[in-house]
Amino acid sequence: MISNGYMDLALEEARAAATRGEVPVGAVIVRDGLVLARAGNRTREFNDVTAHAEILAIRQAAEKLGSERLIDADLYVTLEPCTMCAAAISFARLRRLYFGAEDEKGGAVTSGVRFFNQPTCHHAPEIYPDIASADAMDLLKGFFREKR
Amino acid sequence: MISNGYMDLALEEARAAATRGEVPVGAVIVRDGLVLARAGNRTREFNDVTAHAEILAIRQAAEKLGSERLIDADLYVTLEPCTMCAAAISFARLRRLYFGAEDEKGGAVTSGVRFFNQPTCHHAPEIYPDIASADAMDLLKGFFREKR
Repeated sequence: MISNGYMDLALEEARAAATRGEVPVGAVIVRDGLVLARAGNRTREFNDVTAHAEILAIRQAAEKLGSERLIDADLYVTLEPCTMCAAAISFARLRRLYFGAEDEKGGAVTSGVRFFNQPTCHHAPEIYPDIASADAMDLLKGFFREKR
Repeated sequence: MISNGYMDLALEEARAAATRGEVPVGAVIVRDGLVLARAGNRTREFNDVTAHAEILAIRQAAEKLGSERLIDADLYVTLEPCTMCAAAISFARLRRLYFGAEDEKGGAVTSGVRFFNQPTCHHAPEIYPDIASADAMDLLKGFFREKR
């Protein structure tokens, strides 16, 4: 069952990222109704191309659980994960992936390399696209409009 | 021009990783003859699926340079990068990628999704495969033989 409440938390993280001048993407990891991690994109702040919301959330949740594998945990993220994040999601053994807006230019789930359908992907989550995608897209469009 | 010296450093990092009980992969980042970063795999130690040698080296080099983009820098890594690392290499704008052993099961450069050839890849390094690959492969085989 999809809880929009968790995607709302992810959208909050995306909005907070925009406030920091970051591309507005947010992510939340949940297990057994408990929020294990919430993070927004911090690539600029950290000078770190790997500091996408999903990667930060995966690292945070793993630290919390003391386990690199996030068995039975679900990820909510406002934008379709990129190739780097899709592979990290697979490595972390996340159970479900709920995402907002599709990203034809850089995504890797329903776009691009469709990593979870590839033979070099050794664990695929259940995938729920298009969750609150209009809100996620509005945030991104607003951010890039202001940048111009 | 290929300097095997840098790949030797990467192999040293891979050996050190094996000593720590980690899958033996090592990486070095070089710019203008200067080693910006050297790292071995630490996924177990850090409980972090993203702590591959390449990711740690990219983050280290970016911190050193104070820039998330590693323009004109080259990466030496003992194993073909996976899907996650290939995308991170692209995001970091690394100039050249030298790698050792091919990884048909999990690689993403000459194997798997061949990320650098995909339309959702927006920067591709020059690619030099098969550098000291026998040494890299011996290390990996030795490690997994002992595990069994």
